[in-house]
Amino acid sequence: MTSLEKHNRMANAIRFLSMDAVQKANSGHPGLPMGAADVATVLFTKFMRFDPKNPNWPNRDRFVLSAGHGSMLLYSLLYLLGYEDMTLEDLKNFRQLGSKTAGHPEYGHASGIETTTGPLGQGIANAVGMAIAERKLADEFGEGLMDHYTYALCGDGCLMEGISQEAITLAGHLKLSKLILFWDNNSITIDGAVSLADSTDQHARFRAANWHTIDIDGHNPDEVAAAIEEAQKSDKPTMIACKTTIGYGAPKKAGTNKAHGSPLGDEEIAETRKALGWEYAPFELPEDILDAWRVAGLRSTKSRVEWEERLEGTKAEIKAEFNRRFSGALPGSFDRTVQKYKQKLADEKPTLASRKSSQNALEVINGAIPETIGGSADLTGSNNTNTSQTPSITPDDFSGRFIHWGIREHAMAAAMNGIALHGGLIPYSGGFLIFSDYCRTSVRLAALMGIRVIHVWTHDSIGVGEDGPTHEPVEQMASLRAIPNLLMFRPADAMETAECWQLALESQHAPSGIALTRQNLPAVRLDYSEKNLCATGAYDLIPANEAEVTIFASGSEVGLAVEAQKVLDGKGIATRVVSVPCMELFFEQPEDYQKAIIGNSPIKVGVEAAIRMGWDAFIGTDGIFIGMDGYGASGKGSDLFKHFGITAEAIVEAVEKKRA
Amino acid sequence: MTSLEKHNRMANAIRFLSMDAVQKANSGHPGLPMGAADVATVLFTKFMRFDPKNPNWPNRDRFVLSAGHGSMLLYSLLYLLGYEDMTLEDLKNFRQLGSKTAGHPEYGHASGIETTTGPLGQGIANAVGMAIAERKLADEFGEGLMDHYTYALCGDGCLMEGISQEAITLAGHLKLSKLILFWDNNSITIDGAVSLADSTDQHARFRAANWHTIDIDGHNPDEVAAAIEEAQKSDKPTMIACKTTIGYGAPKKAGTNKAHGSPLGDEEIAETRKALGWEYAPFELPEDILDAWRVAGLRSTKSRVEWEERLEGTKAEIKAEFNRRFSGALPGSFDRTVQKYKQKLADEKPTLASRKSSQNALEVINGAIPETIGGSADLTGSNNTNTSQTPSITPDDFSGRFIHWGIREHAMAAAMNGIALHGGLIPYSGGFLIFSDYCRTSVRLAALMGIRVIHVWTHDSIGVGEDGPTHEPVEQMASLRAIPNLLMFRPADAMETAECWQLALESQHAPSGIALTRQNLPAVRLDYSEKNLCATGAYDLIPANEAEVTIFASGSEVGLAVEAQKVLDGKGIATRVVSVPCMELFFEQPEDYQKAIIGNSPIKVGVEAAIRMGWDAFIGTDGIFIGMDGYGASGKGSDLFKHFGITAEAIVEAVEKKRA
Repeated sequence: MTSLEKHNRMANAIRFLSMDAVQKANSGHPGLPMGAADVATVLFTKFMRFDPKNPNWPNRDRFVLSAGHGSMLLYSLLYLLGYEDMTLEDLKNFRQLGSKTAGHPEYGHASGIETTTGPLGQGIANAVGMAIAERKLADEFGEGLMDHYTYALCGDGCLMEGISQEAITLAGHLKLSKLILFWDNNSITIDGAVSLADSTDQHARFRAANWHTIDIDGHNPDEVAAAIEEAQKSDKPTMIACKTTIGYGAPKKAGTNKAHGSPLGDEEIAETRKALGWEYAPFELPEDILDAWRVAGLRSTKSRVEWEERLEGTKAEIKAEFNRRFSGALPGSFDRTVQKYKQKLADEKPTLASRKSSQNALEVINGAIPETIGGSADLTGSNNTNTSQTPSITPDDFSGRFIHWGIREHAMAAAMNGIALHGGLIPYSGGFLIFSDYCRTSVRLAALMGIRVIHVWTHDSIGVGEDGPTHEPVEQMASLRAIPNLLMFRPADAMETAECWQLALESQHAPSGIALTRQNLPAVRLDYSEKNLCATGAYDLIPANEAEVTIFASGSEVGLAVEAQKVLDGKGIATRVVSVPCMELFFEQPEDYQKAIIGNSPIKVGVEAAIRMGWDAFIGTDGIFIGMDGYGASGKGSDLFKHFGITAEAIVEAVEKKRA
Repeated sequence: MTSLEKHNRMANAIRFLSMDAVQKANSGHPGLPMGAADVATVLFTKFMRFDPKNPNWPNRDRFVLSAGHGSMLLYSLLYLLGYEDMTLEDLKNFRQLGSKTAGHPEYGHASGIETTTGPLGQGIANAVGMAIAERKLADEFGEGLMDHYTYALCGDGCLMEGISQEAITLAGHLKLSKLILFWDNNSITIDGAVSLADSTDQHARFRAANWHTIDIDGHNPDEVAAAIEEAQKSDKPTMIACKTTIGYGAPKKAGTNKAHGSPLGDEEIAETRKALGWEYAPFELPEDILDAWRVAGLRSTKSRVEWEERLEGTKAEIKAEFNRRFSGALPGSFDRTVQKYKQKLADEKPTLASRKSSQNALEVINGAIPETIGGSADLTGSNNTNTSQTPSITPDDFSGRFIHWGIREHAMAAAMNGIALHGGLIPYSGGFLIFSDYCRTSVRLAALMGIRVIHVWTHDSIGVGEDGPTHEPVEQMASLRAIPNLLMFRPADAMETAECWQLALESQHAPSGIALTRQNLPAVRLDYSEKNLCATGAYDLIPANEAEVTIFASGSEVGLAVEAQKVLDGKGIATRVVSVPCMELFFEQPEDYQKAIIGNSPIKVGVEAAIRMGWDAFIGTDGIFIGMDGYGASGKGSDLFKHFGITAEAIVEAVEKKRA
């Protein structure tokens, strides 16, 4: 058997596992795995560095299947390469409830799935994040410990999505030369030919973004190998355009959109077997080919062992730090640092915009936790996400800890996912809360994956003021709270801001968003408490026995609640104030805690400078809600609060009206 | 005075109005208006065709300020050109509560504001939509009635946002040669130099997308004029890169990010007056310059009058049709058409996926309403948004009525906004509900503007099945319902689908989303009703006197509610079913209607294959909710409904448990 014959048979193993699994599931996408099988075979048998027995080896090369609908490509590879938690049985259960082999690759389902993909374009930006993480950690720990490539495979859909442009311009700017993107250039999308909707010269586009590009026949293994070698040598990120035939090998459907997203059908599969000379039953593999794949799977064992030896040979502190970083654990001293800072805040009781309180907290955090990596989507001075420890990362110097993401919220969020998935770093962003809408898909994916990324979202209400309704969130708190497994924090003052930051950092398996104000807020938490009061999501800020009125509020409106409480109390109306910094954490508390906090005041008031959605869980459907019921307006922030009736006076008035 | 001197003084009028208004407001962005004043002066005094006395002239050129933070540029222009509803007083009230002159341009606040901008990149895609509308209407009504340019002005931020790539690749593909984009190439963003975050060769990027590009000194009026002339002649869309100095004229702050987003300060303004030789007080304009602007404002009166004459000279039916189209009114016969179709549905009682019911309804609608223009983001066969009347629009033939948007949900939504804003057409999209997340910013802007765009969002729950959680909406219904002034429909069967389509089409001042299933649904509306029952948002589908149980459900779960009702009724438990196709419309109903529908059954159940958020308003916080509380999974749709306990049996069981 010539080496080309061997290659073809190895690639065909992917093709038949994929098309047979799709056929058995009666659902799925055979076209991409069949088309990209040659590229994947060359990449994984000759270049990718990984160890199926140690799938989490920190210095492994990363592979991202951005075109996630081609999931059977990845599952086939993992099985063929000998990843132990991907069995033939798993492939047979493709797309069935409870299987590891979901319709799209899901992070955490099996080793070797580096990220969850499916929503197009996301994977490219994840890969950019991984490549950033690699550079940053190489700078910090040296290339002996961190020196790997990040590969991604995308389709035409990924390249049409806007996020791809944000990601590639960022990668080109940052000269991420160890990022190599394969474009599965098959000229077909679901609707038919790409030319129905697009005429972009992708090579020129990538070169305009400071990438190196290479054009190859994606079915010629020698060209694939030569291109990867060339890409590895480039001082820019490289896009390899692999001209492929979707559904390669299927006599009737290859090269058409019929091969994209449906099973080929028994007849076409039988014809494909004939055409490719594959005489084996579904899920049956010739021993020599499986052996060849398994041998390829062990290619990098030596490299991994040598790396382990280098790690062993490193100074004990550095080794311990490296291992801690990749374990995800925070430094042991962190809680003490926070306590000290909280004592200071209790002493000083500062009146500050919470975006500024956040910066102050970050100054402490970034001093205590070296793995945080900050940034902003061109709003550094507004988001206050920079601190004395965070010089900027530049294309030629990754020793900094701050990324100028540019006006690219979407790629920022998706690349942060990639940084978190890579391990060793904790990314936090900076943006306006309103622009969370631009990156919602990536935020959702972080929540679905359960990874620790932290979004700093400032300018969190009509407090934005003059910029007007295009910049004033009213429904964003509700719509972000709606995302399962996303912790949305909205702290009321400097103390709560510090506590929310601590919770976000300690939350290893959920992303967080922290909504912060532009405008000043008085301190409402005046005493030191060792306990993190925000940890229960909602707590008694001002308790009252047999309170007739309970006011629930978050963020900037807690101060109003406290003011109103004083007035009502002065009028002999027993009033209690509950601060609600994080609804998600509250609803994770034991039922009796929830009941106690919600309590049984006859009058319940919710106050948030946002829409009511979500607050009924606290105040009931007959509770009073002081907030917004439509868009904001352009004007001075203080004028807007008055105009929209979100004031202490309005709270008092509403309570008195209800009592009358 | 030479013509250059005159130009400079006219441009300086913009500069000083802008910097003085920002100073007076003590808030805003002087840099862009000062930098782009020369470009705007040439464009508006020599090229733009419009009539301040007839600002809604359908054939006017459109101008979109994509860099919306430079709003004072637009407000200054409108005042200078003689738009009657933009007075000096309005400029003095810049960014004050209640003023027309909001921080960012808001559609509807004053004539000449063609769209609401601020969130970056959106305006470019709006302009693409306007240019599509122009080509489509030119094809339909002839170039005698429709033949105008669409101009847009963007900044570096717009070009970094991913949506810009989607928009420009679409425009290049469609050869929108009458679209002319000015890039205010000032090399400055909020954080500082563009080079902090980007190194893109924008010319090469645009050329890769099939655009013509021109590079000019944006302060040289001759170069600006020559470039516009060249652009007008191009057979491609044109990007004119205008090298400008942000804050042009300010001695210390020009060319720096200090001029971007804050008032210049009294001292710097005084120095700028000296530097530019401007001896007038704030808001004071020399008579000759104001006159020159006002004369320029009247430049196109003749052209407008000639156009009116051409319209008058057109066949009566065509003239009436043209006028109807631009009035936004539907054809008078539409309601009769719907009634006939509803009678047919009552006879046939089809069991269909609601995406298919939608296609059937669209077949009727597209036959009755010639101004609908459909499309899909590469999911035509899945969204079912094509009908027999909608051949595809191609780069060289705009006679079709269907746009292959490509995998570009964001630009699709924003360009649809542009089509609706242009007038004469009603755009509807096709996409998966989950991917509404990709285009949320544009959907929100449509709702803020109150324009009629209709989003067809199919695959609306775990009914998606095997594609898994990345493709299964669970929180999207809630998060879209959270957007003020967006009507979110979720019809239960073919009849409701037809009614919801009618409501969406009749809603001239709000966008709509229609959530539709992949899986089959039985008919639940079995009888013909002339009245559109969905119009109240929620209605008694199965009434019951003194119902012990009321089940509220939407979409695919109404069928389950009906099944459960039968079982409960059979057990002697009086049960009522309320269908909830549109929460927003329900909460617009008179209070007594709302009370009657919500009723006082001791047991209230909400059923939706999505999260609970929003349903408490129907079932109270102690109601039973049958739905999702986290992400879906990959598996057969029917398996998933069972797995997540969203079945008629689960409803019955929950009711019986509550009664016990």
